[in-house]
Amino acid sequence: MNDHDSIRPVRWLDDGGVQLLDQRRLPHRVEYVDCRSAEEVTTAIRDMVVRGAPAIGIAAAYGAVLAAAAPDPAAALARLAGARPTAVNLRWALSRMARVSPRDRDALLNEARRIHTEDVAANRRMGELGSALIERGRAVLTHCNTGSLATGGYGTALGVIRRAWSDRRLTRVYAGETRPWLQGARLTAWELIEDGIPATVLADGAAAALLRTGEVGWVVVGADRVVANGDVANKIGTYSLALAARAHGVGFMVVAPTSTLDPAVASGEGIPLEWRGDDEVLGMAGRRIAPPAASAWNPVFDVTPAGLVDVLVTEAGVVKRPDTDSLADLMAGHGASGGEMC
Amino acid sequence: MNDHDSIRPVRWLDDGGVQLLDQRRLPHRVEYVDCRSAEEVTTAIRDMVVRGAPAIGIAAAYGAVLAAAAPDPAAALARLAGARPTAVNLRWALSRMARVSPRDRDALLNEARRIHTEDVAANRRMGELGSALIERGRAVLTHCNTGSLATGGYGTALGVIRRAWSDRRLTRVYAGETRPWLQGARLTAWELIEDGIPATVLADGAAAALLRTGEVGWVVVGADRVVANGDVANKIGTYSLALAARAHGVGFMVVAPTSTLDPAVASGEGIPLEWRGDDEVLGMAGRRIAPPAASAWNPVFDVTPAGLVDVLVTEAGVVKRPDTDSLADLMAGHGASGGEMC
Repeated sequence: MNDHDSIRPVRWLDDGGVQLLDQRRLPHRVEYVDCRSAEEVTTAIRDMVVRGAPAIGIAAAYGAVLAAAAPDPAAALARLAGARPTAVNLRWALSRMARVSPRDRDALLNEARRIHTEDVAANRRMGELGSALIERGRAVLTHCNTGSLATGGYGTALGVIRRAWSDRRLTRVYAGETRPWLQGARLTAWELIEDGIPATVLADGAAAALLRTGEVGWVVVGADRVVANGDVANKIGTYSLALAARAHGVGFMVVAPTSTLDPAVASGEGIPLEWRGDDEVLGMAGRRIAPPAASAWNPVFDVTPAGLVDVLVTEAGVVKRPDTDSLADLMAGHGASGGEMC
Repeated sequence: MNDHDSIRPVRWLDDGGVQLLDQRRLPHRVEYVDCRSAEEVTTAIRDMVVRGAPAIGIAAAYGAVLAAAAPDPAAALARLAGARPTAVNLRWALSRMARVSPRDRDALLNEARRIHTEDVAANRRMGELGSALIERGRAVLTHCNTGSLATGGYGTALGVIRRAWSDRRLTRVYAGETRPWLQGARLTAWELIEDGIPATVLADGAAAALLRTGEVGWVVVGADRVVANGDVANKIGTYSLALAARAHGVGFMVVAPTSTLDPAVASGEGIPLEWRGDDEVLGMAGRRIAPPAASAWNPVFDVTPAGLVDVLVTEAGVVKRPDTDSLADLMAGHGASGGEMC
């Protein structure tokens, strides 16, 4: 079976270093950045050589191995932890690394490798669980980049799509271009094609018209945070897709590892959403599109209410129509109770 | 009163010629193309110096004045009629011009001026009718470019917004960037700012999240065709906005002159929709963004079902919740009957 899984954004180099696939250059050039010190990993994370919360966490874990050899390991780790302020996985990975003796390099490397391996394994498990829900013979639509590039490998939503393609369930994969950063057109299309899966890109505003054709069976997206009641923060544009999916009876699937669940926040209103500068919307690749005096409305994320989510796929199980009870059960490692879990 | 109306995309030059504002250069440069022959007008329409169906019709009407002086007037008119295959207004304007004696230059010029003046008057009337429906103190969201640039002047949906701004009803005007061609970011933002109305641009996918904030009272759009049952063909992305507006109880207003109504087509399924090349989506501002092997799904228009339209504003009157009966009454010049008309 061709499992359409060849891309790894982060690799440990046997001679001691971290190799990162430079995502700033894709899809035009496939180039790697080799980091030989924690400092170089910090710079690479800050400069977006690597992006995607799980991928950043894994790069940081390997960076912690290199930090042990720095003149001042504690200072190097602190700088690493501050490379991207909002990436929760970065601090999560470093706190896991901190439980290992900083003087035992082999143990550090083993732990980093374990973080990486576990991430890919979780993605493969989610791929299996999510694919099983997809009926044969229709297309899927995805948003942003949730693939190998954003994770340790294989991907979350794109992992489900990889697996569904391998399982011959899909007629076609549609990728919303995902303005303003174009992660869909640049990264998702690239990694699908690289792994032998044809990709069709559309303007984000065209998605509702596409769903109206009846060709698409599922919208499959990732998540940046899923809170206690099942509300989902994800890349701007996700909420619009959820509304359009519901209006057309198209399934809406959120794929996220349990590490993305945040039971400490009760509902979507409690999620702090990041905003970015006007230039992202008013220009493209350094080129100005809009007139100088225009302003922009540019939130990075939106919140999709749990009521629009047909299924949440995690590595610990699938929750249909997630709500506070079913998510609490999932986190407690129980079976289904209040909601439906399978 | 500042009526925020200074832009004209087409002007007749007193010494005999048509001056077109070059929309390919906006917003970076404000340049004009002077056409001294019907041939030059034909080329300018074909090359998109002027765009927007009503603006194309007016340019063609003035072109017909110049055609009368061509070596072979009939051939010049035929070339003019074929400059853009899909613009209905082009043929409509030329058939009006054909009713005037080709040897009476003054009569030809008067008819072209009348077509132009009537278009602006219809837009101003729609502006008045539409603005009256907008409650004071909230924002509006529009899509694509439906303004002075697309018409004889003032605009359809943007005419309503101009008037509502003059009437001090609006807190803010949001413009969806309108991928792939970016008419919103490039043209709508430019003409609003040029006329002293602040403009805020957003990625099309962000619109649902914006409507969820409650800041926007109305989504106001134009139409390329409104068929007998009230279904609306308009720029791709319109349908997505209509769904989001309905989900949030935000009003959805379509502004279109009666010349845009097509009672010969029963419903949206009968509207032939134009498709454009993959390159528009796979690139941006002439630069490739997606990998070479990616394909695109790129319809120019989508269809919004009449059921999502809260109000249709024409120069002949306003139709609330348009349907086959109320539109037939409007076209017959009657008052309200089956549907609601005011």
